[in-house]
Amino acid sequence: MQSVEKFSIQRFTEQERENIEATVARERPLTIILNNQELVTLLCSPAALKYLAIGFLSSEGLVENKDAIRKILVDDQKGIVRVETRDGQEFPEEQIFKRFITSGCGRGATFYSAADVQDQAKLETQMEISVTEVLALAKTFLRHSQMYKTTGGVHSAALCDTAGIMVFADDIGRHNAIDKIFGQCLLEDIPLDDHIIISTGRISSEMLLKVVKRNIPIVISKSAPTALGVRLADKLGITLIGFVRGKRMNVYANDWRIVTHRK
Amino acid sequence: MQSVEKFSIQRFTEQERENIEATVARERPLTIILNNQELVTLLCSPAALKYLAIGFLSSEGLVENKDAIRKILVDDQKGIVRVETRDGQEFPEEQIFKRFITSGCGRGATFYSAADVQDQAKLETQMEISVTEVLALAKTFLRHSQMYKTTGGVHSAALCDTAGIMVFADDIGRHNAIDKIFGQCLLEDIPLDDHIIISTGRISSEMLLKVVKRNIPIVISKSAPTALGVRLADKLGITLIGFVRGKRMNVYANDWRIVTHRK
Repeated sequence: MQSVEKFSIQRFTEQERENIEATVARERPLTIILNNQELVTLLCSPAALKYLAIGFLSSEGLVENKDAIRKILVDDQKGIVRVETRDGQEFPEEQIFKRFITSGCGRGATFYSAADVQDQAKLETQMEISVTEVLALAKTFLRHSQMYKTTGGVHSAALCDTAGIMVFADDIGRHNAIDKIFGQCLLEDIPLDDHIIISTGRISSEMLLKVVKRNIPIVISKSAPTALGVRLADKLGITLIGFVRGKRMNVYANDWRIVTHRK
Repeated sequence: MQSVEKFSIQRFTEQERENIEATVARERPLTIILNNQELVTLLCSPAALKYLAIGFLSSEGLVENKDAIRKILVDDQKGIVRVETRDGQEFPEEQIFKRFITSGCGRGATFYSAADVQDQAKLETQMEISVTEVLALAKTFLRHSQMYKTTGGVHSAALCDTAGIMVFADDIGRHNAIDKIFGQCLLEDIPLDDHIIISTGRISSEMLLKVVKRNIPIVISKSAPTALGVRLADKLGITLIGFVRGKRMNVYANDWRIVTHRK
Protein backbone atom coordinates (compact mmCIF):
# COMPACT_ATOMS: atom_id res chain seq x y z
CA MET A 1 0.00 0.00 0.00
CA GLN A 2 1.22 3.49 -0.87
CA SER A 3 2.15 5.58 2.14
CA VAL A 4 0.58 8.74 0.73
CA GLU A 5 -2.73 9.61 -0.83
CA LYS A 6 -3.91 12.54 -2.91
CA PHE A 7 -6.91 14.65 -1.97
CA SER A 8 -8.62 17.43 -3.84
CA ILE A 9 -8.81 20.29 -1.34
CA GLN A 10 -9.37 24.04 -1.14
CA ARG A 11 -6.56 26.51 -0.58
CA PHE A 12 -7.76 29.85 0.81
CA THR A 13 -6.22 33.26 1.07
CA GLU A 14 -8.13 36.34 2.21
CA GLN A 15 -8.69 37.24 -1.42
CA GLU A 16 -9.43 33.95 -3.12
CA ARG A 17 -9.85 30.22 -3.02
CA GLU A 18 -8.51 27.63 -5.41
CA ASN A 19 -8.86 23.92 -5.81
CA ILE A 20 -5.54 22.13 -5.35
CA GLU A 21 -4.32 18.55 -5.05
CA ALA A 22 -2.76 17.82 -1.65
CA THR A 23 -0.57 14.82 -0.90
CA VAL A 24 -1.39 13.49 2.56
CA ALA A 25 0.30 10.78 4.64
CA ARG A 26 -1.77 7.64 5.14
CA GLU A 27 -2.47 6.46 8.69
CA ARG A 28 -3.55 2.87 9.34
CA PRO A 29 -3.92 0.65 12.38
CA LEU A 30 -1.48 -2.28 12.63
CA THR A 31 -2.35 -5.10 15.01
CA ILE A 32 0.56 -7.23 16.20
CA ILE A 33 -0.29 -10.79 17.17
CA LEU A 34 2.44 -12.80 18.91
CA ASN A 35 1.87 -16.56 19.22
CA ASN A 36 -1.90 -16.11 18.72
CA GLN A 37 -2.06 -13.43 21.37
CA GLU A 38 -3.17 -9.95 20.29
CA LEU A 39 -0.57 -7.65 21.81
CA VAL A 40 -1.15 -4.14 20.59
CA THR A 41 -2.62 -1.98 17.83
CA LEU A 42 -0.41 0.84 16.61
CA LEU A 43 -1.33 3.66 14.26
CA CYS A 44 1.29 3.84 11.55
CA SER A 45 2.16 4.53 7.92
CA PRO A 46 1.15 1.46 5.90
CA ALA A 47 4.61 0.41 4.70
CA ALA A 48 7.22 -1.97 6.10
CA LEU A 49 4.66 -3.48 8.48
CA LYS A 50 6.85 -6.56 8.94
CA TYR A 51 9.80 -4.45 10.05
CA LEU A 52 7.61 -2.39 12.35
CA ALA A 53 6.13 -5.47 14.04
CA ILE A 54 9.52 -7.13 14.54
CA GLY A 55 11.14 -3.88 15.66
CA PHE A 56 8.35 -3.28 18.17
CA LEU A 57 8.63 -6.81 19.56
CA SER A 58 12.39 -6.46 19.77
CA SER A 59 12.18 -3.07 21.50
CA GLU A 60 9.79 -4.56 24.04
CA GLY A 61 12.15 -7.49 24.67
CA LEU A 62 9.65 -10.04 23.31
CA VAL A 63 11.83 -11.18 20.40
CA GLU A 64 15.56 -11.47 21.09
CA ASN A 65 16.95 -12.21 17.65
CA LYS A 66 16.15 -13.63 14.22
CA ASP A 67 16.62 -17.24 15.34
CA ALA A 68 13.84 -16.84 17.86
CA ILE A 69 11.31 -16.26 15.05
CA ARG A 70 9.58 -19.25 13.47
CA LYS A 71 7.14 -17.51 11.13
CA ILE A 72 5.93 -14.03 10.16
CA LEU A 73 2.60 -13.60 8.36
CA VAL A 74 1.76 -10.13 7.05
CA ASP A 75 -1.79 -9.19 6.04
CA ASP A 76 -1.29 -5.80 4.41
CA GLN A 77 -4.99 -5.46 3.65
CA LYS A 78 -6.24 -5.97 7.18
CA GLY A 79 -3.19 -4.40 8.84
CA ILE A 80 -2.24 -7.48 10.84
CA VAL A 81 1.19 -9.01 11.42
CA ARG A 82 1.28 -12.43 13.08
CA VAL A 83 4.58 -13.52 14.54
CA GLU A 84 5.28 -16.99 15.86
CA THR A 85 8.37 -17.60 17.95
CA ARG A 86 10.19 -20.91 18.27
CA ASP A 87 9.39 -21.18 21.96
CA GLY A 88 5.75 -20.27 21.28
CA GLN A 89 5.62 -18.50 24.61
CA GLU A 90 2.34 -16.89 25.62
CA PHE A 91 2.25 -14.26 28.28
CA PRO A 92 -0.31 -14.19 31.07
CA GLU A 93 -2.77 -11.34 30.34
CA GLU A 94 -1.77 -9.90 33.67
CA GLN A 95 1.83 -9.59 32.48
CA ILE A 96 0.94 -7.97 29.15
CA PHE A 97 -1.38 -5.70 31.03
CA LYS A 98 1.43 -4.59 33.33
CA ARG A 99 3.90 -4.28 30.50
CA PHE A 100 1.81 -2.15 28.19
CA ILE A 101 -0.56 -0.34 30.49
CA THR A 102 1.91 0.95 32.96
CA SER A 103 4.14 2.06 30.15
CA GLY A 104 1.94 4.94 29.06
CA CYS A 105 2.21 4.65 25.37
CA GLY A 106 3.02 0.95 25.28
CA ARG A 107 6.50 2.03 24.44
CA GLY A 108 8.92 1.14 27.15
CA ALA A 109 8.23 3.71 29.82
CA THR A 110 8.47 0.86 32.32
CA PHE A 111 12.20 1.42 32.09
CA TYR A 112 11.84 4.67 33.95
CA SER A 113 12.39 3.11 37.29
CA ALA A 114 15.87 3.93 38.53
CA ALA A 115 16.63 0.23 38.92
CA ASP A 116 15.99 -0.53 35.26
CA VAL A 117 18.19 2.26 34.04
CA GLN A 118 20.93 1.24 36.47
CA ASP A 119 20.86 -2.30 35.09
CA GLN A 120 21.73 -0.86 31.71
CA ALA A 121 25.51 -0.75 31.26
CA LYS A 122 26.90 2.61 30.23
CA LEU A 123 28.12 2.71 26.62
CA GLU A 124 31.87 3.21 26.71
CA THR A 125 32.69 2.61 23.05
CA GLN A 126 35.43 4.88 21.73
CA MET A 127 33.67 5.59 18.41
CA GLU A 128 34.24 9.14 17.21
CA ILE A 129 32.46 11.40 14.74
CA SER A 130 33.53 14.75 13.32
CA VAL A 131 31.32 17.83 13.07
CA THR A 132 31.73 17.69 9.27
CA GLU A 133 30.44 14.10 9.24
CA VAL A 134 27.41 14.95 11.39
CA LEU A 135 26.45 17.90 9.20
CA ALA A 136 26.88 15.81 6.02
CA LEU A 137 24.78 12.95 7.43
CA ALA A 138 22.01 15.36 8.43
CA LYS A 139 21.99 16.91 4.98
CA THR A 140 21.79 13.54 3.17
CA PHE A 141 19.15 12.35 5.65
CA LEU A 142 16.85 15.30 5.06
CA ARG A 143 17.24 14.86 1.30
CA HIS A 144 16.18 11.21 1.71
CA SER A 145 13.07 12.21 3.60
CA GLN A 146 10.96 12.74 0.52
CA MET A 147 7.67 11.82 2.20
CA TYR A 148 8.23 14.44 4.86
CA LYS A 149 8.81 17.07 2.23
CA THR A 150 5.73 16.04 0.24
CA THR A 151 3.23 15.68 3.05
CA GLY A 152 4.75 17.52 6.02
CA GLY A 153 3.24 14.77 8.08
CA VAL A 154 5.78 12.08 8.83
CA HIS A 155 8.93 11.42 10.79
CA SER A 156 12.01 9.77 9.35
CA ALA A 157 14.78 7.77 10.98
CA ALA A 158 17.93 6.17 9.67
CA LEU A 159 20.75 3.92 10.75
CA CYS A 160 24.11 5.32 9.65
CA ASP A 161 27.81 4.91 10.03
CA THR A 162 30.08 7.93 9.83
CA ALA A 163 30.22 7.59 6.04
CA GLY A 164 26.51 7.56 5.23
CA ILE A 165 22.99 6.19 5.56
CA MET A 166 22.52 2.42 5.68
CA VAL A 167 18.84 1.87 6.50
CA PHE A 168 16.06 4.45 6.18
CA ALA A 169 12.42 4.49 7.35
CA ASP A 170 9.46 6.87 7.35
CA ASP A 171 6.39 6.78 9.55
CA ILE A 172 3.70 9.07 10.95
CA GLY A 173 5.01 8.06 14.41
CA ARG A 174 8.56 8.83 15.42
CA HIS A 175 8.79 5.65 17.52
CA ASN A 176 7.49 3.58 14.63
CA ALA A 177 10.15 4.94 12.27
CA ILE A 178 12.87 3.87 14.74
CA ASP A 179 11.27 0.46 15.29
CA LYS A 180 11.10 -0.11 11.51
CA ILE A 181 14.86 0.43 11.36
CA PHE A 182 15.51 -2.00 14.21
CA GLY A 183 13.12 -4.58 12.73
CA GLN A 184 14.82 -4.49 9.35
CA CYS A 185 18.28 -4.75 10.93
CA LEU A 186 17.23 -7.75 13.00
CA LEU A 187 15.74 -9.60 10.01
CA GLU A 188 18.58 -8.75 7.63
CA ASP A 189 21.45 -9.30 10.08
CA ILE A 190 22.59 -5.69 9.87
CA PRO A 191 24.79 -4.97 12.89
CA LEU A 192 23.78 -2.07 15.13
CA ASP A 193 26.69 -1.84 17.56
CA ASP A 194 28.78 1.29 17.09
CA HIS A 195 26.38 2.82 14.59
CA ILE A 196 24.42 6.06 14.60
CA ILE A 197 20.67 6.76 14.73
CA ILE A 198 19.40 9.93 13.10
CA SER A 199 15.80 11.13 13.46
CA THR A 200 13.62 14.06 12.45
CA GLY A 201 11.75 13.81 15.76
CA ARG A 202 12.17 15.09 19.26
CA ILE A 203 14.60 13.00 21.33
CA SER A 204 12.69 11.82 24.38
CA SER A 205 13.63 9.33 27.05
CA GLU A 206 11.82 6.49 25.29
CA MET A 207 13.92 6.87 22.18
CA LEU A 208 17.17 6.79 24.16
CA LEU A 209 16.09 3.61 25.92
CA LYS A 210 15.40 1.94 22.56
CA VAL A 211 18.79 3.04 21.28
CA VAL A 212 20.95 2.08 24.27
CA LYS A 213 19.58 -1.46 24.18
CA ARG A 214 21.17 -1.78 20.73
CA ASN A 215 24.53 -0.38 21.87
CA ILE A 216 24.18 2.64 19.62
CA PRO A 217 26.42 5.37 21.05
CA ILE A 218 25.41 8.38 18.91
CA VAL A 219 21.95 9.92 18.36
CA ILE A 220 21.40 12.86 16.00
CA SER A 221 18.24 14.93 15.49
CA LYS A 222 17.30 18.16 13.83
CA SER A 223 14.84 18.63 16.73
CA ALA A 224 15.23 19.26 20.45
CA PRO A 225 15.71 16.70 23.20
CA THR A 226 13.70 16.66 26.43
CA ALA A 227 15.41 17.25 29.77
CA LEU A 228 14.88 13.60 30.78
CA GLY A 229 16.41 12.65 27.42
CA VAL A 230 19.49 14.74 28.15
CA ARG A 231 19.90 13.24 31.61
CA LEU A 232 19.46 9.68 30.35
CA ALA A 233 21.93 10.20 27.48
CA ASP A 234 24.46 11.53 29.97
CA LYS A 235 23.98 8.55 32.29
CA LEU A 236 23.88 5.91 29.55
CA GLY A 237 26.99 7.16 27.74
CA ILE A 238 25.14 8.25 24.59
CA THR A 239 26.39 11.22 22.59
CA LEU A 240 23.24 13.29 22.07
CA ILE A 241 23.32 15.77 19.18
CA GLY A 242 20.28 18.00 18.59
CA PHE A 243 19.20 21.04 16.61
CA VAL A 244 21.44 20.12 13.67
CA ARG A 245 20.59 22.98 11.36
CA GLY A 246 22.70 24.29 8.53
CA LYS A 247 26.27 24.57 9.70
CA ARG A 248 25.84 24.10 13.43
CA MET A 249 24.65 21.64 16.03
CA ASN A 250 24.14 21.33 19.80
CA VAL A 251 25.73 18.51 21.78
CA TYR A 252 23.74 17.84 24.95
CA ALA A 253 25.69 14.90 26.42
CA ASN A 254 28.93 12.98 26.02
CA ASP A 255 30.57 15.46 23.68
CA TRP A 256 33.90 13.59 24.02
CA ARG A 257 32.97 11.54 20.93
CA ILE A 258 32.90 14.69 18.79
CA VAL A 259 36.15 15.60 17.07
CA THR A 260 36.44 18.99 15.42
CA HIS A 261 38.67 17.63 12.70
CA ARG A 262 39.21 14.01 11.75
CA LYS A 263 42.83 12.94 12.09
CA MET B 1 7.34 22.46 38.79
CA GLN B 2 8.81 24.49 35.95
CA SER B 3 8.17 23.03 32.50
CA VAL B 4 11.64 23.87 31.24
CA GLU B 5 15.15 23.38 32.54
CA LYS B 6 18.48 24.93 31.62
CA PHE B 7 21.51 22.87 30.64
CA SER B 8 25.05 23.95 29.94
CA ILE B 9 25.85 22.38 26.56
CA GLN B 10 28.33 22.61 23.68
CA ARG B 11 27.48 24.25 20.38
CA PHE B 12 29.73 23.10 17.51
CA THR B 13 30.43 24.42 14.08
CA GLU B 14 33.14 23.03 11.80
CA GLN B 15 35.45 25.79 12.98
CA GLU B 16 34.77 26.09 16.70
CA ARG B 17 32.92 25.05 19.80
CA GLU B 18 31.38 27.22 22.48
CA ASN B 19 29.68 26.62 25.76
CA ILE B 20 26.05 27.81 25.71
CA GLU B 21 23.02 27.57 27.97
CA ALA B 22 20.17 25.61 26.39
CA THR B 23 16.58 25.68 27.59
CA VAL B 24 15.09 22.19 27.34
CA ALA B 25 11.52 20.98 27.90
CA ARG B 26 11.04 18.79 30.96
CA GLU B 27 9.52 15.33 30.52
CA ARG B 28 8.00 13.52 33.51
CA PRO B 29 5.85 10.43 34.02
CA LEU B 30 2.31 11.07 35.30
CA THR B 31 0.42 8.13 36.78
CA ILE B 32 -3.36 8.44 36.82
CA ILE B 33 -5.16 6.49 39.54
CA LEU B 34 -8.95 6.27 39.29
CA ASN B 35 -10.79 4.97 42.37
CA ASN B 36 -7.61 3.32 43.68
CA GLN B 37 -6.97 1.61 40.37
CA GLU B 38 -3.77 2.51 38.53
CA LEU B 39 -4.92 3.22 34.98
CA VAL B 40 -2.04 4.54 32.97
CA THR B 41 1.32 6.32 33.10
CA LEU B 42 1.78 9.10 30.56
CA LEU B 43 4.96 10.99 29.73
CA CYS B 44 4.20 14.70 29.84
CA SER B 45 5.33 18.21 30.65
CA PRO B 46 5.09 18.67 34.42
CA ALA B 47 2.43 21.40 34.52
CA ALA B 48 -1.35 21.32 34.75
CA LEU B 49 -1.27 17.66 35.84
CA LYS B 50 -4.79 17.94 37.25
CA TYR B 51 -6.16 19.15 33.93
CA LEU B 52 -4.26 16.45 32.04
CA ALA B 53 -5.58 13.68 34.29
CA ILE B 54 -9.19 14.88 34.08
CA GLY B 55 -8.94 15.53 30.34
CA PHE B 56 -7.53 12.06 29.76
CA LEU B 57 -10.28 10.42 31.83
CA SER B 58 -12.91 12.48 30.02
CA SER B 59 -11.47 11.62 26.58
CA GLU B 60 -11.55 7.94 27.51
CA GLY B 61 -15.18 8.23 28.66
CA LEU B 62 -14.30 7.38 32.28
CA VAL B 63 -15.43 10.73 33.71
CA GLU B 64 -18.57 12.25 32.20
CA ASN B 65 -18.69 15.65 33.84
CA LYS B 66 -17.60 17.66 36.88
CA ASP B 67 -20.42 16.36 39.06
CA ALA B 68 -19.14 12.83 38.63
CA ILE B 69 -15.90 13.75 40.45
CA ARG B 70 -15.73 13.43 44.24
CA LYS B 71 -12.07 14.26 44.87
CA ILE B 72 -8.84 15.01 43.01
CA LEU B 73 -5.48 14.64 44.77
CA VAL B 74 -2.41 15.87 42.93
CA ASP B 75 1.10 14.83 44.02
CA ASP B 76 3.30 17.05 41.87
CA GLN B 77 6.47 15.64 43.38
CA LYS B 78 5.73 12.00 42.61
CA GLY B 79 3.79 12.70 39.43
CA ILE B 80 0.57 11.07 40.58
CA VAL B 81 -3.02 12.26 40.23
CA ARG B 82 -5.67 10.33 42.18
CA VAL B 83 -9.25 10.83 41.08
CA GLU B 84 -12.24 9.52 42.98
CA THR B 85 -15.64 9.49 41.32
CA ARG B 86 -18.98 9.62 43.11
CA ASP B 87 -19.96 6.17 41.91
CA GLY B 88 -16.51 4.83 42.90
CA GLN B 89 -16.69 2.42 40.00
CA GLU B 90 -13.76 0.04 39.50
CA PHE B 91 -13.19 -1.63 36.20
CA PRO B 92 -12.35 -5.30 35.82
CA GLU B 93 -8.65 -5.58 34.81
CA GLU B 94 -9.84 -7.38 31.70
CA GLN B 95 -11.83 -4.33 30.64
CA ILE B 96 -9.02 -1.84 31.25
CA PHE B 97 -6.72 -4.22 29.44
CA LYS B 98 -9.00 -4.25 26.40
CA ARG B 99 -9.55 -0.53 26.52
CA PHE B 100 -5.93 0.52 26.67
CA ILE B 101 -4.10 -2.33 25.04
CA THR B 102 -6.13 -2.57 21.91
CA SER B 103 -5.96 1.16 21.54
CA GLY B 104 -2.33 1.30 20.57
CA CYS B 105 -1.23 4.30 22.45
CA GLY B 106 -3.88 4.12 25.14
CA ARG B 107 -5.48 7.00 23.37
CA GLY B 108 -8.79 6.03 21.91
CA ALA B 109 -7.91 4.02 18.84
CA THR B 110 -10.63 1.60 19.89
CA PHE B 111 -12.96 4.01 18.14
CA TYR B 112 -11.53 2.95 14.83
CA SER B 113 -14.08 0.27 14.31
CA ALA B 114 -16.60 1.41 11.72
CA ALA B 115 -19.45 0.83 14.19
CA ASP B 116 -18.04 3.27 16.72
CA VAL B 117 -17.56 6.03 14.20
CA GLN B 118 -21.04 5.45 12.83
CA ASP B 119 -22.50 5.85 16.32
CA GLN B 120 -21.03 9.32 16.39
CA ALA B 121 -23.53 11.86 15.06
CA LYS B 122 -22.25 14.13 12.33
CA LEU B 123 -21.72 17.73 13.45
CA GLU B 124 -24.20 19.89 11.58
CA THR B 125 -23.73 23.16 13.44
CA GLN B 126 -23.91 26.22 11.21
CA MET B 127 -20.96 27.99 12.86
CA GLU B 128 -18.90 29.97 10.36
CA ILE B 129 -15.38 31.36 10.39
CA SER B 130 -13.69 33.75 7.98
CA VAL B 131 -10.24 33.31 6.47
CA THR B 132 -9.17 36.53 8.21
CA GLU B 133 -10.28 35.14 11.57
CA VAL B 134 -8.41 31.85 11.07
CA LEU B 135 -5.18 33.63 10.09
CA ALA B 136 -5.48 36.00 13.07
CA LEU B 137 -6.11 33.12 15.50
CA ALA B 138 -3.12 31.21 14.17
CA LYS B 139 -0.89 34.26 14.55
CA THR B 140 -1.97 34.91 18.15
CA PHE B 141 -1.68 31.22 18.96
CA LEU B 142 1.90 30.94 17.77
CA ARG B 143 2.79 34.07 19.73
CA HIS B 144 1.33 32.43 22.86
CA SER B 145 3.41 29.35 22.34
CA GLN B 146 6.44 30.72 24.16
CA MET B 147 7.66 27.35 25.38
CA TYR B 148 7.76 26.05 21.83
CA LYS B 149 9.84 28.99 20.76
CA THR B 150 12.25 28.62 23.69
CA THR B 151 12.80 24.88 23.61
CA GLY B 152 11.61 23.74 20.19
CA GLY B 153 10.35 20.69 21.99
CA VAL B 154 6.67 21.02 22.81
CA HIS B 155 3.25 21.11 21.23
CA SER B 156 0.63 23.68 22.04
CA ALA B 157 -3.14 23.58 21.82
CA ALA B 158 -5.86 26.12 22.50
CA LEU B 159 -9.60 26.44 22.71
CA CYS B 160 -10.83 29.49 20.82
CA ASP B 161 -13.89 31.23 19.55
CA THR B 162 -13.75 33.26 16.36
CA ALA B 163 -12.59 36.31 18.35
CA GLY B 164 -9.62 34.84 20.18
CA ILE B 165 -7.95 32.30 22.45
CA MET B 166 -9.82 31.22 25.60
CA VAL B 167 -7.76 28.35 27.06
CA PHE B 168 -4.16 27.51 26.20
CA ALA B 169 -1.94 24.50 27.02
CA ASP B 170 1.58 23.28 26.26
CA ASP B 171 2.92 19.74 26.48
CA ILE B 172 5.65 17.54 25.03
CA GLY B 173 2.81 15.33 23.73
CA ARG B 174 0.28 16.70 21.28
CA HIS B 175 -2.52 14.54 22.75
CA ASN B 176 -1.64 15.70 26.24
CA ALA B 177 -1.90 19.37 25.24
CA ILE B 178 -5.43 18.75 23.91
CA ASP B 179 -6.44 16.74 26.99
CA LYS B 180 -5.19 19.55 29.26
CA ILE B 181 -7.56 21.92 27.46
CA PHE B 182 -10.50 19.56 27.83
CA GLY B 183 -9.68 18.88 31.50
CA GLN B 184 -9.57 22.56 32.34
CA CYS B 185 -12.83 23.22 30.50
CA LEU B 186 -14.56 20.39 32.34
CA LEU B 187 -13.40 21.57 35.77
CA GLU B 188 -14.07 25.26 35.12
CA ASP B 189 -17.40 24.83 33.32
CA ILE B 190 -16.10 26.35 30.09
CA PRO B 191 -18.44 25.33 27.28
CA LEU B 192 -16.91 23.52 24.28
CA ASP B 193 -19.83 23.30 21.85
CA ASP B 194 -19.36 25.45 18.77
CA HIS B 195 -15.80 26.36 19.64
CA ILE B 196 -12.52 25.86 17.81
CA ILE B 197 -9.44 23.76 18.63
CA ILE B 198 -6.10 24.95 17.33
CA SER B 199 -2.94 22.84 17.59
CA THR B 200 0.71 22.96 16.55
CA GLY B 201 0.67 19.21 15.94
CA ARG B 202 -0.24 16.89 13.12
CA ILE B 203 -3.99 16.24 12.88
CA SER B 204 -4.44 12.48 13.14
CA SER B 205 -7.57 10.40 13.52
CA GLU B 206 -7.20 10.23 17.30
CA MET B 207 -7.32 13.99 17.64
CA LEU B 208 -10.48 14.23 15.54
CA LEU B 209 -12.20 11.61 17.67
CA LYS B 210 -11.36 13.56 20.83
CA VAL B 211 -12.70 16.73 19.25
CA VAL B 212 -15.95 15.39 17.79
CA LYS B 213 -16.97 14.00 21.20
CA ARG B 214 -16.98 17.60 22.46
CA ASN B 215 -19.06 18.87 19.52
CA ILE B 216 -16.22 21.05 18.28
CA PRO B 217 -16.81 21.71 14.58
CA ILE B 218 -13.55 23.42 13.56
CA VAL B 219 -9.95 22.21 13.92
CA ILE B 220 -6.97 24.32 12.89
CA SER B 221 -3.31 23.33 12.68
CA LYS B 222 -0.13 24.76 11.24
CA SER B 223 0.81 21.14 10.45
CA ALA B 224 -0.53 18.50 8.07
CA PRO B 225 -3.40 16.09 8.64
CA THR B 226 -3.19 12.36 7.94
CA ALA B 227 -5.38 10.77 5.25
CA LEU B 228 -7.44 8.97 7.90
CA GLY B 229 -7.81 12.33 9.64
CA VAL B 230 -9.15 13.91 6.44
CA ARG B 231 -11.63 11.09 5.89
CA LEU B 232 -12.86 11.17 9.48
CA ALA B 233 -13.25 14.96 9.45
CA ASP B 234 -15.28 14.66 6.26
CA LYS B 235 -17.52 11.96 7.74
CA LEU B 236 -17.92 13.58 11.17
CA GLY B 237 -18.77 17.04 9.82
CA ILE B 238 -15.60 18.71 11.13
CA THR B 239 -14.05 21.60 9.21
CA LEU B 240 -10.37 20.62 9.00
CA ILE B 241 -7.91 23.45 8.34
CA GLY B 242 -4.22 22.62 8.01
CA PHE B 243 -0.94 24.18 6.92
CA VAL B 244 -1.97 27.62 8.15
CA ARG B 245 1.15 29.55 7.26
CA GLY B 246 1.44 33.26 6.76
CA LYS B 247 -1.42 34.40 4.59
CA ARG B 248 -2.81 31.09 3.41
CA MET B 249 -4.33 27.86 4.62
CA ASN B 250 -5.58 24.51 3.31
CA VAL B 251 -9.09 23.29 4.03
CA TYR B 252 -9.24 19.48 3.83
CA ALA B 253 -12.89 18.86 4.75
CA ASN B 254 -16.21 20.66 5.23
CA ASP B 255 -15.07 23.94 3.70
CA TRP B 256 -18.70 25.19 3.77
CA ARG B 257 -18.01 26.73 7.20
CA ILE B 258 -15.35 29.02 5.71
CA VAL B 259 -16.52 32.41 4.53
CA THR B 260 -14.19 34.56 2.51
CA HIS B 261 -15.54 37.76 4.02
CA ARG B 262 -17.66 38.13 7.13
CA LYS B 263 -21.01 39.73 6.45
